[in-house]
Amino acid sequence: MSNHKTKNALRDYSHIPKVVIKRLSKYHSVLEKLDTEGIKNVSSQNLSHEVHVKASQLRKDLAYFGEFGTRGKGYDVSYLHGVIGDILGLKKEWAVVLAGLGHLGYALVSYRGLEKKGFKIAGIFESDPKKIGRNVHGMRIYSIDDIGRVVKDSDVKIGIITVPVDAAQKVCDAMVDAGIKAILNFAPVILHPRKPIFVEIVDISGELSILSHYLTFHAI
Amino acid sequence: MSNHKTKNALRDYSHIPKVVIKRLSKYHSVLEKLDTEGIKNVSSQNLSHEVHVKASQLRKDLAYFGEFGTRGKGYDVSYLHGVIGDILGLKKEWAVVLAGLGHLGYALVSYRGLEKKGFKIAGIFESDPKKIGRNVHGMRIYSIDDIGRVVKDSDVKIGIITVPVDAAQKVCDAMVDAGIKAILNFAPVILHPRKPIFVEIVDISGELSILSHYLTFHAI
Repeated sequence: MSNHKTKNALRDYSHIPKVVIKRLSKYHSVLEKLDTEGIKNVSSQNLSHEVHVKASQLRKDLAYFGEFGTRGKGYDVSYLHGVIGDILGLKKEWAVVLAGLGHLGYALVSYRGLEKKGFKIAGIFESDPKKIGRNVHGMRIYSIDDIGRVVKDSDVKIGIITVPVDAAQKVCDAMVDAGIKAILNFAPVILHPRKPIFVEIVDISGELSILSHYLTFHAI
Repeated sequence: MSNHKTKNALRDYSHIPKVVIKRLSKYHSVLEKLDTEGIKNVSSQNLSHEVHVKASQLRKDLAYFGEFGTRGKGYDVSYLHGVIGDILGLKKEWAVVLAGLGHLGYALVSYRGLEKKGFKIAGIFESDPKKIGRNVHGMRIYSIDDIGRVVKDSDVKIGIITVPVDAAQKVCDAMVDAGIKAILNFAPVILHPRKPIFVEIVDISGELSILSHYLTFHAI
């Protein structure tokens, strides 16, 4: 935790475009690594290189919240890490529920990087009777019918959906009814939440088609 | 396959910004679904709603390659699906290799959506001797030391990395040496390819931090 978190507590970052927020999350991951390694300063060249963007793009992105490196010294790693953490809402710990403990769901609940950023799994839901009631990494697996109760009891705002396509909308409905305000959806289907909430989609074949575009139309 | 594929065969789409390409991949997924369902036309309102962008953004994105809907009728689903498929380089089938058959890797090789978009797994690589030589979904699991041989033999251009952090750079080096030109990286570590190639990162905690930003600074 950086002491800059308090200093920026009252600032409003709602004006930053989504595409910049996405890049900020990448800068944050790199800065976290550099901070952990005890590195004090980083140039815009080096930081931008690490996330595969141009240095000019990085400087433009950081200008949204008035951060300018010192000529010859670059950016203060710990300070910038703290400010971007504030912007990403990582000042507090977020409880998260996950529905669908197939291979992808299992990979996610096993991934320690989530907790490192402050996302703590507060509930795992499955429809398979063989899995319900068992534990995974010390966490209880609940029936998917218990989403409402568990989410309400623990005031969770974020849900992750890793169920098969056919079940995704029903799970989305249950999450929204229970008070979930943001969903990260891995099911390859468009969700239609009953109330306005935030939805992010992780679309693997979409990511691959960005690569196939580049391989087709760009020289390397 | 749309007959527009041939018509647009010689066009150059290298001028389209990456952020637009990313959205095109989302439009493509929705159009594919609509096309499969036999839906002929879609309005910019409906299409943009499905991918959670504004209708004005969609129209601006499609204007990059000169597509305008017909007033009152909207866009021709099959035609637009074909053109965007061209832009994404989905005109041909792409062979893909995957390294790391943990839970995430297993989820990916089991996901039929990849083949549906034309990405065909041509090789799976593992370092675990208990897995090497076995089959998964009819595909042979090779030793990670065989990346060079298998990639060269089958002229693969795209690699997917789902190995643990510590092994990711070594796998990246082996892939690049073997001629891989584009990597989709799920390992939460920044890769430094020896040669210039295209790299896309799927960063789960980064996606979640976009949601925590919205929950913190935006009202719903």
